[in-house]
Amino acid sequence: MAAEIAEQPAVLEQLLADGLAEITEVAARIRRYAPRFVVLAARGTSDHAALYAKYLAEIRMAVPAGLASPSSMTVYGARPALDGVLFLAVSQSGGSPDLVDSLSVARACGALTVAVTNNPGSDLAAAAEVHVDVRAGVERAVAATKTYTAELLALYLLLAGDRNGTTPAEAAAPLAAAAERTLATGAGSTAARRYRRVDRLVLTGRGYSYPTAREAALKLMETSYLSAQAFSGADLLHGPLAMIDAAVPVIALVPPGRGGAAMAPVLERLAARGADVLPVGRPDGLALASTGIAEELLPILEILPLQQLAWRLALDRGTDPDRPRGLAKVTSTW
Amino acid sequence: MAAEIAEQPAVLEQLLADGLAEITEVAARIRRYAPRFVVLAARGTSDHAALYAKYLAEIRMAVPAGLASPSSMTVYGARPALDGVLFLAVSQSGGSPDLVDSLSVARACGALTVAVTNNPGSDLAAAAEVHVDVRAGVERAVAATKTYTAELLALYLLLAGDRNGTTPAEAAAPLAAAAERTLATGAGSTAARRYRRVDRLVLTGRGYSYPTAREAALKLMETSYLSAQAFSGADLLHGPLAMIDAAVPVIALVPPGRGGAAMAPVLERLAARGADVLPVGRPDGLALASTGIAEELLPILEILPLQQLAWRLALDRGTDPDRPRGLAKVTSTW
Repeated sequence: MAAEIAEQPAVLEQLLADGLAEITEVAARIRRYAPRFVVLAARGTSDHAALYAKYLAEIRMAVPAGLASPSSMTVYGARPALDGVLFLAVSQSGGSPDLVDSLSVARACGALTVAVTNNPGSDLAAAAEVHVDVRAGVERAVAATKTYTAELLALYLLLAGDRNGTTPAEAAAPLAAAAERTLATGAGSTAARRYRRVDRLVLTGRGYSYPTAREAALKLMETSYLSAQAFSGADLLHGPLAMIDAAVPVIALVPPGRGGAAMAPVLERLAARGADVLPVGRPDGLALASTGIAEELLPILEILPLQQLAWRLALDRGTDPDRPRGLAKVTSTW
Repeated sequence: MAAEIAEQPAVLEQLLADGLAEITEVAARIRRYAPRFVVLAARGTSDHAALYAKYLAEIRMAVPAGLASPSSMTVYGARPALDGVLFLAVSQSGGSPDLVDSLSVARACGALTVAVTNNPGSDLAAAAEVHVDVRAGVERAVAATKTYTAELLALYLLLAGDRNGTTPAEAAAPLAAAAERTLATGAGSTAARRYRRVDRLVLTGRGYSYPTAREAALKLMETSYLSAQAFSGADLLHGPLAMIDAAVPVIALVPPGRGGAAMAPVLERLAARGADVLPVGRPDGLALASTGIAEELLPILEILPLQQLAWRLALDRGTDPDRPRGLAKVTSTW
């Protein structure tokens, strides 16, 4: 897991170099198709990449988007009318049967189906009309790290579109170096000692940072067996706030930009409850090398110190981050 | 909270008697509109009712559906093309500014906007083209109970459509009596003693029961300050399973029907991890008076013993279920 975390700047660099032509072509095809709606289907870590893509679709493409509930199709046999819909499945392995089934049903129901995976030879890639390879190389640790950031970058290149004359690839050009600098601080590993005796933790963020909160929570559950819960900043105030006190620490994503700014009222309410808050994206917490990086790309940086935190915390607590109990690398669900 | 839990059979009965004409008219209007897509917007407890409505839209209306990320519109200024889209906002109070803003933007972007609330005089009701009143009466406890089941029934009547010659109202006719019988067992209160010293808990279900898992988790967080996490059965296997051991109890929704049947492989994996599992919807766990009730309506029964559990557990642990710390009845978020 540590090696794969460290590999990420190179993976991002390589995806931009080798994958760009393919992704640009698929992006143009999606633009020509002009979807009236985007459905995103994924599980686990890739579901957080799909949630990131939902924000991109809504904000950058101005198209409504939703996360699929695969069971509607696979358990209840729903056959929705999907002409003009972009059905985008995201999966590291491309191997989960319920995703392959959902995508196949969506294709039969008229959707343009695109699979974003790390395995061009997978069933999901074969079932989809179009495949995008995130080219992260073999991932050995059960807890996904480099495939997650590669999925985020691939989805950004695919969906973000030009903005003020800047292409997504131009906006992403400084990203690998920024990832390198962010990892080099080792801030996440240092913060691990703070949580050595903690069993419950809350993560929160808004907008583009909300998927980061979800993904970091999953890493902590998988590797350190914490009850780590993620809430959008707004949802946290609608109930879950009650369970937070000085004994339940909070990690808050407050990077530069509109999503971080929208967290101000949440931070106020957390302070009023006496919560122990670690801010991510600020110098007094886990700092990011975010200068010159567009807000839409910050999720690729934000997750890095939190991956380091999950890895280091697992070692400190005596669990094996590479082989979480009860899990296999590819999960089959129906 | 106890009084409002007990009131639910009467609230359901009354909604069917007094609200049916209004809802049937709105349902006909939605059918004529023939939405190409359904966007659902809500927060907190109502977000779980919205998730229930997503399954109804996908399975019973055969229309793709998604939960809104209000921040796309309110924080990032997204203005998606929404002609032909049904935008359905669900809110007990109808008072949260971000929902009012999202709905107003959706209306300006061309959507048919429908608000389902317990307050016809609310800002949300005024901003929407169509309002549906769930007629649950004033709710005093901060933790919503009767407004949740009233929202579920209103959404069922609104979206389910006829099936095999049976109208939604006919299918729902035996519901109030079944709710009465389910509450009368007091099984939820009895089960509370099992969790008196627990700080972490997992709830899981699939399909129509997944919203129940989410809502029960929120009740436990709000009233007993537990870290209660809800996962769809499939998502649980993609990572979070690792944190479950004999010390982290699981409440599994396994009612009669396809959603419950799809939980079989999840129960197997939980047994392999030595988990302490309480099944809801089976005689050996929290039984439901489910005979003759359609699967789509079981979420209205399933939540009842779990509300009783949350209430009783709060008392046993010395917290006040009527006044959770840090929360107000109406939450304002932007």
